[in-house]
Amino acid sequence: MPTGTDRDPLVKPLLGRYAAVRAFTEHLCAPLTTEDYVIQSMTDVSPTKWHLAHTSWFFETFVLKPYLESYVELDPAYAFLFNSYYMQLGAQHCRAQRGTLSRPTVAEVFAYRQHVDGAVHDLLDCADGALFHRTQSLIELGLHHEQQHQELILTDIKHVLSVNPLRPSYRKTSSTRPGAAPELAWISFPGGVQWIGHDGAGFAYDNEAPRHRVFLELFALASRLVTTGEYLEFMADGGYQRPELWLSLGWKAVEASHRSEPFYWEKRDGEWWTFTLDGPRPIDPAEPVAHLSYFEADAFARWAGARLPTEAEWEVAATALAPAGNFVESGRLHPTPAECAASGGLQQMYGDLWEWTQSPYTPYPGFRSAPGAVGEYNGKFMCNQFVLRGGSCATSATHIRPTYRNLFPPEATWQFTGLRLARDG
Amino acid sequence: MPTGTDRDPLVKPLLGRYAAVRAFTEHLCAPLTTEDYVIQSMTDVSPTKWHLAHTSWFFETFVLKPYLESYVELDPAYAFLFNSYYMQLGAQHCRAQRGTLSRPTVAEVFAYRQHVDGAVHDLLDCADGALFHRTQSLIELGLHHEQQHQELILTDIKHVLSVNPLRPSYRKTSSTRPGAAPELAWISFPGGVQWIGHDGAGFAYDNEAPRHRVFLELFALASRLVTTGEYLEFMADGGYQRPELWLSLGWKAVEASHRSEPFYWEKRDGEWWTFTLDGPRPIDPAEPVAHLSYFEADAFARWAGARLPTEAEWEVAATALAPAGNFVESGRLHPTPAECAASGGLQQMYGDLWEWTQSPYTPYPGFRSAPGAVGEYNGKFMCNQFVLRGGSCATSATHIRPTYRNLFPPEATWQFTGLRLARDG
Amino acid sequence: MPTGTDRDPLVKPLLGRYAAVRAFTEHLCAPLTTEDYVIQSMTDVSPTKWHLAHTSWFFETFVLKPYLESYVELDPAYAFLFNSYYMQLGAQHCRAQRGTLSRPTVAEVFAYRQHVDGAVHDLLDCADGALFHRTQSLIELGLHHEQQHQELILTDIKHVLSVNPLRPSYRKTSSTRPGAAPELAWISFPGGVQWIGHDGAGFAYDNEAPRHRVFLELFALASRLVTTGEYLEFMADGGYQRPELWLSLGWKAVEASHRSEPFYWEKRDGEWWTFTLDGPRPIDPAEPVAHLSYFEADAFARWAGARLPTEAEWEVAATALAPAGNFVESGRLHPTPAECAASGGLQQMYGDLWEWTQSPYTPYPGFRSAPGAVGEYNGKFMCNQFVLRGGSCATSATHIRPTYRNLFPPEATWQFTGLRLARDG
Amino acid sequence: MPTGTDRDPLVKPLLGRYAAVRAFTEHLCAPLTTEDYVIQSMTDVSPTKWHLAHTSWFFETFVLKPYLESYVELDPAYAFLFNSYYMQLGAQHCRAQRGTLSRPTVAEVFAYRQHVDGAVHDLLDCADGALFHRTQSLIELGLHHEQQHQELILTDIKHVLSVNPLRPSYRKTSSTRPGAAPELAWISFPGGVQWIGHDGAGFAYDNEAPRHRVFLELFALASRLVTTGEYLEFMADGGYQRPELWLSLGWKAVEASHRSEPFYWEKRDGEWWTFTLDGPRPIDPAEPVAHLSYFEADAFARWAGARLPTEAEWEVAATALAPAGNFVESGRLHPTPAECAASGGLQQMYGDLWEWTQSPYTPYPGFRSAPGAVGEYNGKFMCNQFVLRGGSCATSATHIRPTYRNLFPPEATWQFTGLRLARDG
Repeated sequence: MPTGTDRDPLVKPLLGRYAAVRAFTEHLCAPLTTEDYVIQSMTDVSPTKWHLAHTSWFFETFVLKPYLESYVELDPAYAFLFNSYYMQLGAQHCRAQRGTLSRPTVAEVFAYRQHVDGAVHDLLDCADGALFHRTQSLIELGLHHEQQHQELILTDIKHVLSVNPLRPSYRKTSSTRPGAAPELAWISFPGGVQWIGHDGAGFAYDNEAPRHRVFLELFALASRLVTTGEYLEFMADGGYQRPELWLSLGWKAVEASHRSEPFYWEKRDGEWWTFTLDGPRPIDPAEPVAHLSYFEADAFARWAGARLPTEAEWEVAATALAPAGNFVESGRLHPTPAECAASGGLQQMYGDLWEWTQSPYTPYPGFRSAPGAVGEYNGKFMCNQFVLRGGSCATSATHIRPTYRNLFPPEATWQFTGLRLARDG
Repeated sequence: MPTGTDRDPLVKPLLGRYAAVRAFTEHLCAPLTTEDYVIQSMTDVSPTKWHLAHTSWFFETFVLKPYLESYVELDPAYAFLFNSYYMQLGAQHCRAQRGTLSRPTVAEVFAYRQHVDGAVHDLLDCADGALFHRTQSLIELGLHHEQQHQELILTDIKHVLSVNPLRPSYRKTSSTRPGAAPELAWISFPGGVQWIGHDGAGFAYDNEAPRHRVFLELFALASRLVTTGEYLEFMADGGYQRPELWLSLGWKAVEASHRSEPFYWEKRDGEWWTFTLDGPRPIDPAEPVAHLSYFEADAFARWAGARLPTEAEWEVAATALAPAGNFVESGRLHPTPAECAASGGLQQMYGDLWEWTQSPYTPYPGFRSAPGAVGEYNGKFMCNQFVLRGGSCATSATHIRPTYRNLFPPEATWQFTGLRLARDG
Repeated sequence: MPTGTDRDPLVKPLLGRYAAVRAFTEHLCAPLTTEDYVIQSMTDVSPTKWHLAHTSWFFETFVLKPYLESYVELDPAYAFLFNSYYMQLGAQHCRAQRGTLSRPTVAEVFAYRQHVDGAVHDLLDCADGALFHRTQSLIELGLHHEQQHQELILTDIKHVLSVNPLRPSYRKTSSTRPGAAPELAWISFPGGVQWIGHDGAGFAYDNEAPRHRVFLELFALASRLVTTGEYLEFMADGGYQRPELWLSLGWKAVEASHRSEPFYWEKRDGEWWTFTLDGPRPIDPAEPVAHLSYFEADAFARWAGARLPTEAEWEVAATALAPAGNFVESGRLHPTPAECAASGGLQQMYGDLWEWTQSPYTPYPGFRSAPGAVGEYNGKFMCNQFVLRGGSCATSATHIRPTYRNLFPPEATWQFTGLRLARDG
Repeated sequence: MPTGTDRDPLVKPLLGRYAAVRAFTEHLCAPLTTEDYVIQSMTDVSPTKWHLAHTSWFFETFVLKPYLESYVELDPAYAFLFNSYYMQLGAQHCRAQRGTLSRPTVAEVFAYRQHVDGAVHDLLDCADGALFHRTQSLIELGLHHEQQHQELILTDIKHVLSVNPLRPSYRKTSSTRPGAAPELAWISFPGGVQWIGHDGAGFAYDNEAPRHRVFLELFALASRLVTTGEYLEFMADGGYQRPELWLSLGWKAVEASHRSEPFYWEKRDGEWWTFTLDGPRPIDPAEPVAHLSYFEADAFARWAGARLPTEAEWEVAATALAPAGNFVESGRLHPTPAECAASGGLQQMYGDLWEWTQSPYTPYPGFRSAPGAVGEYNGKFMCNQFVLRGGSCATSATHIRPTYRNLFPPEATWQFTGLRLARDG
């Protein structure tokens, strides 16, 4: 446990990281009009101002109220309004009704952020070693939590703008490399007993632990993500008309959606366009196909004579690689083609698109949730969701790890999701 | 047909009325934050900015595009976004999705209003007698249309603020008279063949014509509206627990709503409060009971050994009275108690609350809709709605007439609706 | 009040009518398999065995339990299972779940009928004049109630068989006259003050009273029902594609139904067929178009430049005519073409098809429901329904009257419903 | 491949097994009334007569039509009516509408079974060695398929009778042992690399293969199933009121169901009763708690400080045991208490109740579906379902194996489902 003296060198970096993460959230809001902050375009989407408030509520609830005696809430009603799903903290405002709240206004939500930021500073300024020790990991958790919501701010506002017949642009994005995608190659990996999961060095969510052994057969992964060009072949081959390619629930989803193309695609004058954070633009056949549901990823893989990787296979393959790629910092906010000039190994394992795995989201052997309400973070969602790996063009580079387990229900399409093929070795 | 010369004395008053009505709409918006303009709290409710744009779209569509050759749309997409339900004008944006649009922004909508206002001025400035004649009645229709939406702006924003757990106030309202309500008296009216409907002198909607004869039995009307105090007796007598008092559909609505009190009421520390445009406040037993569905009005009347009036009875009784009362101009934005000192006649026939009649909304004998899209205004809604009469505290005094037929489905509660008892003579 | 002596000549005819009506119900069931009795093909439809039991329950509840001291229920649970909607008698089995009951079996339901029949006989055998007087009108009501359910047995079993891909026939029906329909003529009627409603001589439902005056303008009725041939012209003229012809709710119903032809029609090899109680058969252009919703009837009338009659107009026109026509006794169970050779008056006013009127189902001036649960028969349904007149090919000849008011919600199509045009005189 | 000579000794046993399985299906129907066969009490439930026909359709479709040239369908419409979900065979009758079909009648369905049985006999009588070889495994599959539907006939008819307020008994069942349940003990198992899955000797479904290695940590299983007595403690401790015990989707299911006790339980005079195939009876605290959803099993385990086993753990523990237990042949049709006198090992691993595992239903490494429509049997359901192991009191003893993987969505409660606790070793 750090004493009064040895906490000092730790406080500053933590405050620095706190300031940087909080500022980046607000930086993402810069292109928005006041009206944009308010909209909930479907139940899965939250208004931007809700994200801004909820991430502040997280620090208020788990750090300030328990550990800063002098803390005074800005408005006691916020505890109800901005609790997402923590049942042990009492009732919450109904998720589907987040778009019915005009108040607090955007300005009031920014004031709430400042109020919380000031209090966190106060806490760390005065904290002795014991208090610092107790709050440090909660603040760290809160910052990673906020980084998750940064990605949601982008994916949610993309959806909000997409349902508007005016199809507005969120902001001008950096242009992507033109050109063809490299030919797909297969990289083989040995099987046998392998270790996966987080070893406890540095931050990780509870669901990444414990580190444990799994038994794998030989397997191979595709060298890059599936492209829109390849996906168009699947479509042309009747992909959306052939039930034998689909899971039973997937086929029902196809019939219910009346879609026979990826989400966000629309036909304009005979050509496929997609909606991006910079508005609609024509499909680039070289770029990874995005916004696929698990069902679409699974059907494509079956059509291609391959399968999706398991999360253990993905992690074993990824461990050796540096987590670098097309993250939110690139400013592209869209997946980019793999590089033709690259040497023969795996590309796009990090960034660009979250990769659907065939692994349902389940607890690792020996998994324990944290005690108390903060433990409602991950474990209670371990049902009817699939694991995705590797981060996307909307993820922060500082937020990703080889052991990181993202999770969405199989029908979700509004995230930056894609796929990499796998096959038995 | 007025000639170039004799149109002049008519143009100025029309422009004056145009300016006044349009300004009053914007005056109603003065207390709102930008965020308030955007919210659709249920399908029946439209965002304020939609009302602002739709009423402008009405002039653009029915006056400017057909009659002002030089007119240029501000944005062609508005024809789709702000058409409410005129099928002959092509597809419309889905009503239930009006709250998913952050763009056009509030500022852009106000610019749209200015654009339309300028063009209407241009049109009237240059119009010769023939053109003036052709557009005058459409402009008049557009102004009455806008006055209807003024009332909806108030009832819709009331709902928007009510669903917010912060329960904000729209604005400080003029306080109402305290004191008791006068004893209810019965006023009798003769039966026989009576004339109702509009005779064509001055403005009226198509659904108020033709003037025609009906045969009425003797009847009597209560001297004032039913009060909250009387309604509390109904509740205390098991009104919401006794199916024999209700229409079959009404009882189903009670069971589905889980309400056993009027809409907007909530219990605080054992006392009934209601939500008003100035926030929550305790019930005043002397004031008229508001926000009743047809089902509640009908059940109360049955419990009271009375019935609802027919629209013909109401009109016959109202014709002799001046249309004066507690309208939006009073600034109270809430119904007020009847006057004890008043002489023995009918009170509150105009203003305070729209009065449910037992008359389904049907065409008068010989009714004809206007040809073309503008004829979709009234006739196509003549199914499963009931007629309400007399205007409310949110209606403009210049908008009401003895022959005015308002209409809502029987389950509607978010309007300023109440009831007056009737009985056989 | 009839004494012991003078009740005797009344008992026998009542018992005779009781036996005849009850036997006719069972006669209608003769063509059914045991399995047919059990099915509820949609919420509006009840299983045949439910109809058989419910009509017996009616006598048990309103006659036997109150007036036959020695009466013992066959099974106390039937009071719950076979109560349709009488709230004052306690809870009921959920209407939508009637098709989930295999027990009581069909044989047990027939035993229940016998049990009730025996008890009604016992009651009337022993009844003194006072008791006879008190029960006579309830038995009469029960018999008319049963005749209504006879019609429902036919329309419900038609629906049950129609949803079966095997499209079975209920029974061979008498063949209809081939040939063309007579040209449509218009019959004019004077306006002014007219009397409608039942005068109390003989049986009538409460909703047909009191007899009262209405004021009518001059009007004209079509000499016969609209034919399928005429309806095909409406369809060919884009009837189902032109929203301006439809009520707003009607257009929504069209969009939701994905139908652009009458209910029960289907295309086979390019030709229109309809489903009848004798299975599918090709459309006969001379026969009246059946199974129309109010919305379709209203849209057709608008397209034809006419309108639907009001119920008062229909009754004034019908009063002079004998209630004769194609009723259930004809064995045709399908509407038949009007007669070409007929003299110039109104045809098909009775039988063939229930005629939609433009009149919402409302109480007549001075209407009172019977006190107690039996009063839940009619009044509580006076909301969002329209009046139909004249009976159909599934109605008993002894069940119809000029003042008879049938009622269905505007979207209903599974009844034998059609239309006759009207216009201003 | 067996020749003409060596197929003979194989034909007779297969025909014997065919006759026995088909006869047992009909034996299960003996207690039913004709009406019972027709009911579909919820979408998950199929009418008994549908099960009878569908299992025959399976042989007709996959054996007779491809391999018996002389085969003539009894009715071509049955291919549509009795296809459950095989998309490659064309359209199917809507599952939710199975209860709307009165025809074919029960007698016609039995005739269909005879028709198919005769044809299967004909096929096997005449089959040469090659044909026998090709059809033998399909017939074997058809028989296991039919045994699955035997269990469904029981669980479905239990549901059908349960929704009837008369609460009928399916049939008198053998009484269960009274007395207390033995104390729960923990049996430990070693971890490490273990083999699971079917090795190909004898019949198995495709989803049980390939046999493969998994890595397990040390673990322990409870010696018997959880009892109703233990479950009552969970309920008394607020089990249904404490969201922290539940998966997020489980808590939503609790709120939506309005249940705070297991399915089929109801309170009578302050005591808990459950519905059985012999009608309602009081809870026996010693017997295993049945009809739990995955959510309830998971919440109970969390409350008990334990967890559910994985399917690999269960299989490793079960492999050494003979598959004996309380199966359908016992005639009890209800789970029975574990034996107190038993020696210290695992009890109730087979029979009594299907045991929820924490394993989502996923493909084993290297899993391949059979080609063609018959391959739609298992693989396409590998999404949002959990694996259950061990069989139940409604399973045939000849139908179960250590490697058998049953599967249901987590909300399912109408099957005979229960739980055994597990913990880390």
